Amino acid sequence: MRHIHIIGIGTGNPEHVTIQAINAMNAADAVFLPTKGEGKEGLVSVRREICERYISNPRCSIIDYEVPKRQTEGRSYVQGVAEWHASLADSYVELILSLPPNGAGAFLVWGDPSLYDSTIRIIERARERMVIEFDYSVVPGITSVQALTASHRIPLNHVGKPVEITTGRRLSELGLQSESTVVMLDGDQSFRKIDEPDAEIFWGAYLGTEDEIIVSGRLGDVAEEILKARAEARQRHGWIMDIYLLRKGRDLEEL
Amino acid sequence: MRHIHIIGIGTGNPEHVTIQAINAMNAADAVFLPTKGEGKEGLVSVRREICERYISNPRCSIIDYEVPKRQTEGRSYVQGVAEWHASLADSYVELILSLPPNGAGAFLVWGDPSLYDSTIRIIERARERMVIEFDYSVVPGITSVQALTASHRIPLNHVGKPVEITTGRRLSELGLQSESTVVMLDGDQSFRKIDEPDAEIFWGAYLGTEDEIIVSGRLGDVAEEILKARAEARQRHGWIMDIYLLRKGRDLEEL
Repeated sequence: MRHIHIIGIGTGNPEHVTIQAINAMNAADAVFLPTKGEGKEGLVSVRREICERYISNPRCSIIDYEVPKRQTEGRSYVQGVAEWHASLADSYVELILSLPPNGAGAFLVWGDPSLYDSTIRIIERARERMVIEFDYSVVPGITSVQALTASHRIPLNHVGKPVEITTGRRLSELGLQSESTVVMLDGDQSFRKIDEPDAEIFWGAYLGTEDEIIVSGRLGDVAEEILKARAEARQRHGWIMDIYLLRKGRDLEEL
Repeated sequence: MRHIHIIGIGTGNPEHVTIQAINAMNAADAVFLPTKGEGKEGLVSVRREICERYISNPRCSIIDYEVPKRQTEGRSYVQGVAEWHASLADSYVELILSLPPNGAGAFLVWGDPSLYDSTIRIIERARERMVIEFDYSVVPGITSVQALTASHRIPLNHVGKPVEITTGRRLSELGLQSESTVVMLDGDQSFRKIDEPDAEIFWGAYLGTEDEIIVSGRLGDVAEEILKARAEARQRHGWIMDIYLLRKGRDLEEL
């Protein structure tokens, strides 16, 4: 049976790659690289660099594939995502069919395959097509949450307290729900929309790369600085990926 | 100035180690290993194995140190933790003083230094003592959350939905607060205490090691199986580390 490795590769620093990830890449006959449609050219080159740096198996080839564009018009968010997954599952079936019988392929995933990534869902869809029999496994990777806290040198949680990981959309709708709240997928800088000037914010963009920027402080004091830094960097690079932690309360308070 | 690397090393699989972690270990004059007082002998040997496997710098030595026992009697949880951190900060100052001037040392942390770990807090306390001047940096690592979802081959979140990471204590007090809830630090199997038979549970112990066990299913159906597997494994090994995800709702539901 063919086998697929879904491999987390960290957030843009080629040194985030684990030994397990390197071994899985080298066990593959083909590494599938999305080379078009990502719209984030800096990230495409990091994926290539990771392959060049760590793949030592000469029988492993790099196969480019095109990522279809997600349609949003006339669809709800979830409808658009579901259609996009179906279209990607078609591509995945094609790629897996191109492997030798009993061969192995690998998909490289930013961060970790479990967190706001759908490679596992799409692979499950591809299996449900019943066009080709294959098995798969998942290799964990460093997430942008961990890259953020490492760069700021902070614990994610207060002692014994919980953490919420959420989206910009939910933050702007519901406000802060937890003393430690990580916000991802926020194209709209939702921290502007909540009334929490005394919360601390720990913000980071292009984490792990040479272009990394981090800013932290009292939200009321640094929100403008972050908005400015973000707009300038986005203009300069043509794209941005960012994430932040909002924190209230004090560490080592009684539970 | 002396420098300390706080290095996340993953959850027990030596292959969880990143290239960044290996480079940081090899940049150190000394790696500090807690060899007593952890009470989890299997984990001590994994730390040693990681050092043996990846440290190629002959000038890097392994320095053992004893971890003081956390006192709980007559203290609140937070008081006990704060005292324990103060005592560990004393040990850290001693260890850092043993480094050559401008030398570097490394602490190896299970999982990632940001998540339910206090090495960063204790290093900050050691700096506040002003006995010795040093700087430090943090290297992210694979957490047990990611090891859990990788072994179960599942996304952590439903599409566009949030995730809560919490403690067993809070779960038993408050019940499920989120559609995806990760429970850590649960010595009391708090999933028994909530009335959510239709939630799905994804449980794992000794994740990443040869002894890994995972069980998943409808909570009402598999709770007993998990309790039995956990008790047997704990008896056999003399210790256990486990974690689980509780999930409600369906994926790809409208937001």
